[in-house]
Parts: sequence; structure tokens; C-alpha cells
Amino acid sequence: MADVGLEQQPSYDVRMKGFARRQTVSAALAWLDAQVTPLGSERVSLAEAARRVLAVPIVSTVDVPGFDRATMDGYAVVATSTEGAGAYSRLPLTVIGDSMPGRPFDGAVSAGQAVRVMTGAPVPRGADAVLPAEFVDAEPHGRTIAALEAVSPGKNVGRVGEDIARGTRLLERGRLLRPQDLGVISSVGLANVEVVRKPRVRLAVTGNELLAAGTPPHGFHIADANGPMLTALAERDGGTVDFRGLVRDDAAAITDALLADADVVIVSGGSSVGVEDLAPGLVAQHGELAVHGIAMRPSSPTGMGRIGNRLVFLLPGNPVSSLCAYDFFAGRALRVLGGRPADWPYRSVRGRLTRKISSPIGRLDYARVTVSAGAVEPLAVAGASILSSTTRADGFVIVGDDSEGFAAGTDVDVWLYA
Amino acid sequence: MADVGLEQQPSYDVRMKGFARRQTVSAALAWLDAQVTPLGSERVSLAEAARRVLAVPIVSTVDVPGFDRATMDGYAVVATSTEGAGAYSRLPLTVIGDSMPGRPFDGAVSAGQAVRVMTGAPVPRGADAVLPAEFVDAEPHGRTIAALEAVSPGKNVGRVGEDIARGTRLLERGRLLRPQDLGVISSVGLANVEVVRKPRVRLAVTGNELLAAGTPPHGFHIADANGPMLTALAERDGGTVDFRGLVRDDAAAITDALLADADVVIVSGGSSVGVEDLAPGLVAQHGELAVHGIAMRPSSPTGMGRIGNRLVFLLPGNPVSSLCAYDFFAGRALRVLGGRPADWPYRSVRGRLTRKISSPIGRLDYARVTVSAGAVEPLAVAGASILSSTTRADGFVIVGDDSEGFAAGTDVDVWLYA
Repeated sequence: MADVGLEQQPSYDVRMKGFARRQTVSAALAWLDAQVTPLGSERVSLAEAARRVLAVPIVSTVDVPGFDRATMDGYAVVATSTEGAGAYSRLPLTVIGDSMPGRPFDGAVSAGQAVRVMTGAPVPRGADAVLPAEFVDAEPHGRTIAALEAVSPGKNVGRVGEDIARGTRLLERGRLLRPQDLGVISSVGLANVEVVRKPRVRLAVTGNELLAAGTPPHGFHIADANGPMLTALAERDGGTVDFRGLVRDDAAAITDALLADADVVIVSGGSSVGVEDLAPGLVAQHGELAVHGIAMRPSSPTGMGRIGNRLVFLLPGNPVSSLCAYDFFAGRALRVLGGRPADWPYRSVRGRLTRKISSPIGRLDYARVTVSAGAVEPLAVAGASILSSTTRADGFVIVGDDSEGFAAGTDVDVWLYA
Repeated sequence: MADVGLEQQPSYDVRMKGFARRQTVSAALAWLDAQVTPLGSERVSLAEAARRVLAVPIVSTVDVPGFDRATMDGYAVVATSTEGAGAYSRLPLTVIGDSMPGRPFDGAVSAGQAVRVMTGAPVPRGADAVLPAEFVDAEPHGRTIAALEAVSPGKNVGRVGEDIARGTRLLERGRLLRPQDLGVISSVGLANVEVVRKPRVRLAVTGNELLAAGTPPHGFHIADANGPMLTALAERDGGTVDFRGLVRDDAAAITDALLADADVVIVSGGSSVGVEDLAPGLVAQHGELAVHGIAMRPSSPTGMGRIGNRLVFLLPGNPVSSLCAYDFFAGRALRVLGGRPADWPYRSVRGRLTRKISSPIGRLDYARVTVSAGAVEPLAVAGASILSSTTRADGFVIVGDDSEGFAAGTDVDVWLYA
């Protein structure tokens, strides 16, 4: 299917006629990518900053350490005092005091003298090296020690600013903060950090056949799978989710969700072109329905649009379609809004197909597979609606819309769910 | 260095003499692995279950769906009624009603009849296929439609139990729950799930030279980097962390932490053999100090032991050593206690060293590196204490204690921090 271009929006037909025109995945992504840039920032404490995204670079205003310090337990000395020391050439040194972390020795060291130091303690004035404890023969509480090795000037001394020099640009804007980054930020004296705000997601799950998540299914009702799944997906991608349970399949209830105070509204269900599929018409009525119907399987009945500052995703009610459409579109938007890379948070591996995967030209296919010892086995599933296939699968293979698929024996990229 | 065996514990010497005997990393890991098995379980709601570890398998007690349902929008028909239908051979069908999701058609379909169905709606008695809307010519509200294609029996119908059959074992014990797993669990009617309890960690950061995390350093004091870093690491590995700020370097305060109500106690700082290093002696006094001193760099002054049911880790105060010792030992324990795989949560890539890495036989080395286009560049760092090296680095290379290192040009495994 040719790229229909974004100026030619698919006309919306409320009757059961199928989509007037499906857009390609790449056209849909092009529209989406033009809509999203990172949100503004907020200030959070270090305790809340793990895995948040820096909104501004971190530049140190201090030297770390702010003083010369011992990097070994031992004795601070004038290095030249130890010249020639060895196991058979013990050089005596006079211990004149102790320097402990946070409790420096308040004096100076001259040739022939030593100050006992612990790792991290300030190296006293005059001293320029630390003789490690294991190169010393010392009596407990003795005032004289014997050096058994020589040290060179600067040895085992961490200089002012050795770890971080004042003015150093430590971390760049856009950094997904790692545990050790928090340590570094803390050590330059910052208790708070400016991070990209988390996108606020309003999740509306519709479907008159649905029972609340986790309710034992009965009669002609099924339990909602999409609420828990989409909540976990959106949180994984850095969003905060407002999910208030099932939304009635009526215009007022859906409109209420569409106009929620949120950066992103995700509506699950009722996204197709039947008379009961209310959401697309409501988006068009209150804002812009930019994409409706996408040339992919599953997830063809997916819509995207805007209402004011809200980005709106209409995901099919079928849970596999919902997962796939989330991963292609809504998840990407959340990641970019939250300052993360747009790419899937999945790892990919190469493997060899055990059976062919077919897909018509003009349609992108999302094929669930298992992977074992490099062998990639497409799951035989009757329909797109088999959610349990996504738990049996280790991941998925994408067949682009310019491909008819892959023959058995082809090496393919597999995106791993976990 | 030979494996010293665990029965020969290193003697603990409170004077500044260095470690009497260092254990190998593999001996230390062997001790650790014998101490840890997954904790007991707790019941959590689906909303709290993302990335938790299943403590029991999930077996479905229901069929999903519990009824035959349409997998397309269209018309439920007796398939044989459509035999021979085509664009030039339109077959009329009489519409006798609608079946909507959650609102079934209350009757039976005979040959020549059709019931309008939406995706997910029950397929009425008598019907055995769904003719998709796009293969039908229909007037709005008309009572007669024309079939433009034939469908075979079973087409576009999801059978009872097609997604999940009653009795199916859906997920195994030990599964780290994915978003779609929550959907599947929800769809079989479970609102809660039994997961491995999170290990409770008491984190005690000691060091008289330290200021509370995020305090601008001044004089001979530095700001605590380990509190924020270790908290984020332990939470990453599934722990809940009780961190009450800095602990005074005195026996009473450290003992209080060592005897905390926790599964794991992590003490940062004071782990070596100096007279000011109180923690090792206190662990030996109240329980068992099984490992003290490990043949690795950094992190050599690391201790491990038990006090009652608590596993205790004594990590060096130096932040890089602390990170490395956490990753080798404490993190592994937390992951196993929480039911996760013992392995590092880091991805590894292969790359080619641009410069050699040297390491003496008998000592394991943890070398921080950058990776760019497959080239692995060891960071030139003066000392182990340079925490900023772990933020500049993309990851690390391990040189085992049976290796003297790697020559430039060698292909090595790099563990990526992010």
C-alpha cells in the first residue's frame, strides 16, 4: 500500500464498511513523531531520581575531594624519607599523630616523621605520600615504625578534585539516571535534581462485555485484560497512570475521559468503524482524528489524534492488538514525552526461523515467536486475539510492509519481551 | 591465589596489618550461594504485581472466552448459506437481529439468515461463521444483505477456550511478571497473585567524614554518595530499602543496624581491618563473619556474614568499591532472595580492546570501560575511588583471578551499566 500522506486523512464512516483508507505504519509514526517532544521539568529529591531523565546537565561547583586524602590505610610521610627502605633496610620513622576521616591531624609532617592515616582521611601538610600499612613494621601504640618499602611522591594520595574537578560537566541532559549517577550528584552537594516530568496518562477501558479486571468471567462477559496490561506498560515507559476502572460504552463517559487533565489519553476498545465504536467520532468532534486504520496486523483498527494538548490513542479492545498498538504508538509517545529514547525497551537477538512467516505486501505483521538456542519458532495461533500467545512467546518478529515475509532458515531479529 | 576453602576463615586482626587471608571471589560466591533461597510469598493485587516474581504457578480454572465469539465485525451466518457467493453472485441473507459484546442475540440462526455481530460479541446458536462486513453489501437499517464472498465453517469465530482452556498452566513459578502476564491473569478471573516477598534491606552508611547525601561538601568532609547509590541499586534488584541517613561510627549505632528487623543488612564503610573499622568485629561478635577480605580490585575490604536470619554485607566506603562489591555479592543475594535470576541485570556485548588490561594472577579485576562502535577503551583512572569513572564508563570488563589480563586487540565481554 502506498503511503497515503497525512493530508489525505481516511474518511470516517460510522457504518460497518471497513476503513475507508488505512495508513501505513511509517506514515502513522511520522505523524506521531511530529507531535511529541519531551515535557517540561520538575525538581525531585535524589531518593526519587532513580531512572528519571535529567532535564538539565549536571555541572559540579565543587572539587571532590575538597582536600588531599589517603587512598590506603597506612602512614602519611614525606616520600623521600622512605628512599632505600626494604625488608633488609628498615628505615625508622617517628609517628607524630593520627589523621582519621573527618578528623584531620592538625600539624605538619617533616622528613623522618609519619602520621597514621586511614583511607579517606586528610593527608597532613608536609606529607606527599602514604606508606601502606602492609609495608610497615609497627608495634601497637608504638611511637616508632619501620618502613619496609619506599613510596614515590603522590603515591596513595587522592588529590583535590581528583574524582571531580570544579566545573566538570558530569552528566548530560537526557541521561536516564543510573544508581551511580545519584552517588555522583550527591557527592557534588545536590540534594535535588531537575528531571523531565512524567507523562500523565488517563486510561479508559471500554467494552460492554467486560467485567472489572480480575473478576471471574461468567455468561457472555469476559474479564478486562487491558486495564492491568496497559497500566503496567505505561508505567514501564515512564508514565503515571490514572485508571479508574471500566468506562461505559457511551458518548458522555468516553468524552469525559477524552477531556481528562492528562498529557496522553488511551482509550481501549471501540476504536473501529462500527456504529458502536464511539471513540473515533468523539475524537474527531472534539479535536483531530489524524490517523484511523493502520495497515498492520494485528492492531489495524487503531486511531491517533489530538484534543487540545492531549495526545489521544484509540487502541483495539482485543488484547493482543492492544499490546501491539501500544508498543508501536502509545509507548513511543510516552517514552519521548518523558525524555527517553523512542526505541522499544526490548532487547533484540538474531535467530534462525524454523518455519516461514508470510505477510502480504502493504501490511506490517507482528509475529509472536519462541526462541530456543538460536531457533526462532513462530507460534501457531488461530487468531490475533489470543493474549496467552504473548505470554507463551519469548518475543516477536516484525515483517515490514515492503516484505512478503521470511522463508524458513532466514536469520531474523527477534525483539524479546523480557 | 588458591581457593582457601570456607572452613579456613581468615583470622580477623583489629590492628592495621592488612587482611590475614583474602578469599577468592569464587569461594566468597560459593559461601553466598549456599545462604540464599527465595523468601516466602505474599499476596498482591494485579495493580502491584508488575515485575514481581510468581511464587506459585497460575493455572486457569475457566475457559477464555467462555462462549463462541466473533473475531471480526460482520454477520453471523450458517457457513453453507454463503457457498457460491461472489461479487457477481450475490446471495441474499435476512438479518434477524444484532449480537453485541455483552448483549447476545437471544435466538438461533438458520440457513439464509444472518445476525449482525461486532468483534467480541457472542456468535448465536445455529451460526458457525462470521461473514466480515467488507464482504457484504448492506443498506443502513435494511433487513436484507447480500453476501459477496463465501466463508467456511468456523471462519472468524473464536471458540470457547480458544485463548485459554480451563486447566491450562499459564505461567510458571519464578516468572518475572510482564505487562501481558497481568492481562492474562486478569482474564482468568484472578484479582490477586501470590508473589515472592521483596527482601527488606536495612542500609547503614557509616563514616565520620561524611555529610548527609546532597550536602555541599566543605572542610575535610565529603557528601555521602553511597546512600543514594545503594538504595537505587537495591531497589533495582527488587529490595525495599530502609535507609535512615548516616550512622555514627560507633559500636552501639552500628550494632543497632546489624540487629535491625531485615532480611539483609548492608553496612557501607568501616569494613576493613583498621582499629576504626568496627563492623567486622561486631558481625563476628553477634553472629558469623564468614568472609572478610576478597582477592579482587576494587572491593578487597568486603565482608559477608550472618546474624540470625539476617545476611550481612560489609561494603567498603569507597563508592566504586561499594558499587562493585554490591554488584558481586549483595545484589546477587537480593535477586535470589526475591526469586529473580542470580545473574547481573546488565546486558553484555562483545567488543575489541583498544589498550591492554593487566591484572595479577590471583586477583579478579573490575575494569571500567567505554564502548564506541565496538571499540572497548579502558578508562585511565588514578584510583579505585573515582566514582565519576562509573558514570563516564559505559560498563565494565571482568578479568578473572586466573588471568593476567587481556592484550590490546582482544575481543572481550563488556557488561553495560545501562
